[in-house]
Order: sequence, then C-alpha cells, then structure tokens
Amino acid sequence: MRTKPVRGCNDLLPAEMELRNQVSQSILSTYKNNGFLMVKTPILESLENLTSGDSGENSKIMFKTIKRGAKLCLNKENLEEKDIAEEGLRYDLTVPLVRLFANNENNLPLPFKSIQIDDSFRAERPQEGRDRQFTQCDVDILGTESILGEIEIITTTMEAYKNVGLPNVVCKISSRKILEKVILSSNFNEENLNQICIIIDKIDKIRIQGCIEELEKLNFPKEKIEKLMTAIQQIKQNGIDDAITFGAEVEDVESIKKIIKVVQSSLSNDQKIEFDISIVRGQGYYTGAVFEMYCIDSGFFGAIGGGGRYDNMFGKFSGKDMPAVGFGLGLVSVLLALKKLGVTSLTNSKKLALIFNKDEDLTLVMQEKNLLKQSFDVSLFEQPKNFKELKRRLLLNGFTHIKRTSNEQISEI
Amino acid sequence: MRTKPVRGCNDLLPAEMELRNQVSQSILSTYKNNGFLMVKTPILESLENLTSGDSGENSKIMFKTIKRGAKLCLNKENLEEKDIAEEGLRYDLTVPLVRLFANNENNLPLPFKSIQIDDSFRAERPQEGRDRQFTQCDVDILGTESILGEIEIITTTMEAYKNVGLPNVVCKISSRKILEKVILSSNFNEENLNQICIIIDKIDKIRIQGCIEELEKLNFPKEKIEKLMTAIQQIKQNGIDDAITFGAEVEDVESIKKIIKVVQSSLSNDQKIEFDISIVRGQGYYTGAVFEMYCIDSGFFGAIGGGGRYDNMFGKFSGKDMPAVGFGLGLVSVLLALKKLGVTSLTNSKKLALIFNKDEDLTLVMQEKNLLKQSFDVSLFEQPKNFKELKRRLLLNGFTHIKRTSNEQISEI
Repeated sequence: MRTKPVRGCNDLLPAEMELRNQVSQSILSTYKNNGFLMVKTPILESLENLTSGDSGENSKIMFKTIKRGAKLCLNKENLEEKDIAEEGLRYDLTVPLVRLFANNENNLPLPFKSIQIDDSFRAERPQEGRDRQFTQCDVDILGTESILGEIEIITTTMEAYKNVGLPNVVCKISSRKILEKVILSSNFNEENLNQICIIIDKIDKIRIQGCIEELEKLNFPKEKIEKLMTAIQQIKQNGIDDAITFGAEVEDVESIKKIIKVVQSSLSNDQKIEFDISIVRGQGYYTGAVFEMYCIDSGFFGAIGGGGRYDNMFGKFSGKDMPAVGFGLGLVSVLLALKKLGVTSLTNSKKLALIFNKDEDLTLVMQEKNLLKQSFDVSLFEQPKNFKELKRRLLLNGFTHIKRTSNEQISEI
Repeated sequence: MRTKPVRGCNDLLPAEMELRNQVSQSILSTYKNNGFLMVKTPILESLENLTSGDSGENSKIMFKTIKRGAKLCLNKENLEEKDIAEEGLRYDLTVPLVRLFANNENNLPLPFKSIQIDDSFRAERPQEGRDRQFTQCDVDILGTESILGEIEIITTTMEAYKNVGLPNVVCKISSRKILEKVILSSNFNEENLNQICIIIDKIDKIRIQGCIEELEKLNFPKEKIEKLMTAIQQIKQNGIDDAITFGAEVEDVESIKKIIKVVQSSLSNDQKIEFDISIVRGQGYYTGAVFEMYCIDSGFFGAIGGGGRYDNMFGKFSGKDMPAVGFGLGLVSVLLALKKLGVTSLTNSKKLALIFNKDEDLTLVMQEKNLLKQSFDVSLFEQPKNFKELKRRLLLNGFTHIKRTSNEQISEI
C-alpha cells in the first residue's frame, strides 16, 4: 500500500480539520444570516461546459476521467485524448453554478444569492500552499445591476471575517471601468487593456518602477508609460476624485463612492473600506467594481479574499446576459491568518481523555462519560502502557484535559 | 452549454442543501462530543490502493483519471486502459482512512476514533436515490479489541439520531461469529459461509421460504437447509441464548449480551437495542458484531445506518493487523426519514425577504436589514414586477416571511 496521499493532495488531520470546519460553518452562517442560499453541484462536469467560455488556462490543467465500458475504444487509429476522455473534474465553482442557475432559472428568486463551500481540482505543478484538490468558498449574486450587489457581498464578507475573529480587516476597492478609462486617456489602445491591467495588478509587489520596466519590455512608447504611471501615482495619492482628471467617467467614480459610503456605514469599528486604484484582480472577466480584503495586522500580508462585478461571463457560457457580482473567500488564507494570530479554535469546547482500566464495569464507565460530556468532548482510552506517549499524541490532536475514572481530579494535559 | 448535471449526478438546491448541512453538522457535533475526531482525505487516490485488499466489485465501477502531459502516450501498440489511467476517484472513505492512519500512525491516539463526512464516487448504472457522487458519513474506531468499540459507536450513533429528531430508533445487533457457528453446526462447509450469509441477509425481504428456495437453487442438501432454517427460526423466536443450543460459542453470545446491556443503559427512553439473528450485513469483511439501525415509525423502512467489527481488513491493505469497528451512517436515508416525518429544518431560523424600492436611500435600507438580522435571515429584493411569482420562488427556497421597507408589518409568505 502507498501510504502517502497522491501527488499534490493532502490529508487533513484532526486538529487542522476541526478548525477548518469551525471556520467554514461560521462563514456559512454569516452569509446565511444575510440571505445567501447554499447550493452544491457535482465535482464531475461535462467537458463541453468546462472548455467553453472563459476557461483559458484552467481547461489545460483539468483532470479528465476515462470513458467506460464499450465507449472506450483503444485500438482506433490516430487515437487522441478526446477519444478517451468522458468528463472533467471542475476547476472552479463558477462553471457549475452558471449551469445550475440555467437549469433551475424558473424556480430561483432573483437576484439569486448563492454560497458554495466545496472542492475543486487543478493539476498544477504542486507547490507550497497550493493543493491539486482545494476547498473554495464562493459567493455570488446573480441578476442584479444595482450596486446593492457589491454592497451586500462586501458587508457580509466583512461581517464573516469579523465573526471568525480577524481584526482590523480592510477592504480595498477599485473599478475596472475607472482604470480602463485612465489607461485609454494615456493613449493606449483598447486591445492592450488586459495586458496593462495585469501589470498594474502587480504594483504592490514590483512598485511603480517595476511596472514601468514591464511596460517597456512590451515596447509601449515611453511617453505613454510615463503619462499612465503619473496618473496612477496621482490617483493613489490624492484619492478617487482625481481619477476624473485623468479620464475616468464621473458616473463610474460616483458609483464607487456610493458603495464606499454605504458599506462604511455598515462596518464594525475596526474595519474600513478605501479606494485603491492598484486593485485590479488578475482575471479578464471583471467589468466593474473589483475589491480585495486584507488583514495585515494578523501578519499575513496576502489578500484573504477578492471579487468583483462580472456582467458578461454568463452570456459567454449560457448565451444569455446576466449581471453578476462574485467573491472568493480565501479559506486557506483565513486559516493562515488565524494561525499567525495564534487562534486554534473558534469555540470554547474542551477535549477530555477519560482513562479507564480494562477490568472496570463498562456500564459505570459509560455513566461517567455521559456526565462529563455535559462540559467536555469526552473520549475513552484504556490505561496505556506508555502514558507519556499517549499524552503527546492527545496534545497533538487537540485534547486539553485528562482524567482517570478511578480518580476525582480533572487535570490539564 | 449543457444545463443538466452529468449522468448520475445531481445539483442540490437551497432548501435541500440547508437541511442536509444542518443534519451533517448535528451528527458531527454529536460524534465530536463523544470523542470522535474529524479527518479529511483527498478524493483522488492511487490506483494501487483502490484495487488492493477487498475492493472487488468497487474497483470495477471506479472513475479513473487520464495521465497527463508526456506521460500520456497514445500511439503505443496494444494500448490498454492501465497505460492511460493515472489515479482513481475513491469509491468509499475506508481505503483513504486506512492510508491516512498508516501514514500518521505515530501521531494519532490509539484507539483512533475518526469521523469523515465527504463524497465518494461510483460509476454505477444511475437509479433512483443512488447518485454517482454521494456523500458518506463514516465513523471508525481503529485499534481496539474491547467491546467498548462497539458500545461507543452504537451509543453515539443512537444519540446522533436522537439529536437530529428521529423518534423510536431501534438498533438490531447480531454477530457473524454466532451466525457462522450456527451454519457450520447445520453441517455446511466453511467455504460456503459467505454465500449462505448473503442469503440469510435477505430474510426480512424474502422470508424463510425465500431463503430455502435460494439455498436449494445452490444445490445444498435439503436436510442441511431444513436444519439451518429451523435453527434460525428458533433463535429468532426465542432469543440469543437459544443460539448456544444450535452451536454458537458461549463466549460470543456473552459478548453480544454484554454490548446490549451496556448500550441499553445509555439509550434514551424511546430507543432500544435488540438481538436479531437475521442482521448479517452484505459485505464479507465483517468478523464479529454486526448492527443496523431502523426508524420504522418515520415511515421509512430501510436501515438508516449499519456497521460492525472488521478485524482483518486493515491487514489486507497495510500488511499489519488492526482490530476495528466501523459504521456508515446513511445520510440520505436519514434525510428521507426526516422528510417522511415532515421535518424541513432542524433550527428555528426564519428567512425573511425584505423588499425595497429602487429609489430608496441604500444606507437606510442596509440599516433596516441589519436590525432585522437579529431575528431573521434577511435577504434584500428590489420591488418586483410580478410579486406573486417572487413569492412562489421564495417559498420554494425556504423563505418564511416577507416585509416591505416602507411598511411596518412583517407577514408570513
């Protein structure tokens, strides 16, 4: 038997799994309280759906299943992968959601506010913190053009972070529409927008100078680059209103300002929302507001979630336009931030190991367990040969207390 | 786009998904309170592991993934499936658990009491109530020969059923050891044990007469068949002590009687545990106690869970013996029983749709939502054109109340 998990996948042991389940359920209950509805879709999805629309890179790193029985014909000449592939494992939760929505459109309330917490698969080269099977937490509001879509996703998410115990979370918001207008006003062409957005997305890492170098590498004229980067720098310094000076539409600026105002009035005291022109989000499908959340005070510096408006994606899949706002809450990032803060549990539950002797009356042992269950999670263990070793393993797996049935005393491990 | 889920798989819509999540979390919390530890293993598993040990039929209905990149060579002569297959989707949670345990043996407390609630896959011919992707709830106690293994699994499971609201649950228990001795005492041979067990497993459906016919079809001598079925009938009528008369070992009978006695002292008033010689469990891997739970009063007549002791299975996988008791709680059966009882939610949470007008001040709308959230799960909807249609959809998705922002009154939908 091979005892290691398959390449790029991991087992989750009790201590980690328990915190993860607590965090998931806390997040879920916050979204539910804010009117989001939970759905679940199959991991297996048709190859047709997985390769349509905006799949791009994702469809290249997809796991595919082999055709079965008589459908699998291996002695064909010039056999290709498509001859042997039947279905795919989904690489995200968006494709199945679009499909679910299209299939149940007449029975779902509009806007449809969904939450999914479930696994997706990508056959990427395995690396630290990136598994080939990973749990995503996706929230989406389908079918509203109103900025209430953005507002509800942002306020609910900020509340979710608060409820899992992350302090001083900041939401940074920008708008693809604003950024695109600023880029076009610096005399770049429409067809280079996406390329340039991807570079500006890196500004926090590579700074203005790094962006300039990357843009130069793509052979854009120096004066255009300088004009654009000056604009970005100015807007970053002076705030959103300055974007109008550099070509942004008043309407787009007002819309983001209104989101910021309404959201701010709903946030808890230690949280804030602020405009930041350098928030771009890598993917090409965003069409309006884009936002990311950070919890710098935890010592974890990456985004703990991000999303935005994507009004055109549905049309590409289903042929029918549908305004939408979506958000991916980074479950693994949240867990990393909590770990840095020293949080190991969201509840006060204490785990007790109750040690009994082989020759004790089991009815009495069970009675004692049932009494202790009112204050502890209780697990029974026979008196071990090596007590020290049992204690080490109990500690590793989240146990906090120990007691012998023959003894009155409960002690910390 | 194909809007239907792939063959044999299903989408779970909000009303169903919410109850399912409540039931899962309730079950999980009962097992946790009784000292079980949650783990999670990858869905992808090595083909080596999935085809070793007792896999039998399961490995035939397994989904396999296609090799990737340079590893996939399609122009080889006499290409076989094994040349193109890389990994498999697990068909149960036991194989990955055995692997996880073997990989972390030195850091887990013994006995190791685990709970997993997660998805498995079988490419069976799709049929009512049996999906190709299905959620299993497995609990196992690894590493104890003590009957406390059986006792803790049964008492915790009965408590879990109680906590999700199933009334009058009955646990029926028997023992493979007792049944096998009774069969051998009727002069059948050791090598026919499994065949005969599988037939006796059907006794509740096909009755004594049906069992006799099936045994006759296999050409066993009439006198042996008669002797066996008389024994079974007698034991069924007169109780477990009678099994000794028909060849069972006193030790095995006493062990089951002790499990029954200790369990009964822990059960709630409306629950009971009773010996039933016709409980067999289909699978060949059980070695001792076997048990199934029923909630006949719900109107759902199938078992709502089953399990038993399987002391040899580990050895077959890992080469190292390990006594174990395992149980599969039938999540779908529990949901069916709850549905028959008319239970649609385990909580008192009420879902309110808050209707606002497009031109209202969004800050005020959010304020009202935030107030109502203390008593309801609140979702915002713009004033719809067709109010009746929105109400229909809200009802379908578990909403219970409705209110307009402009109006004081909260009303039931």
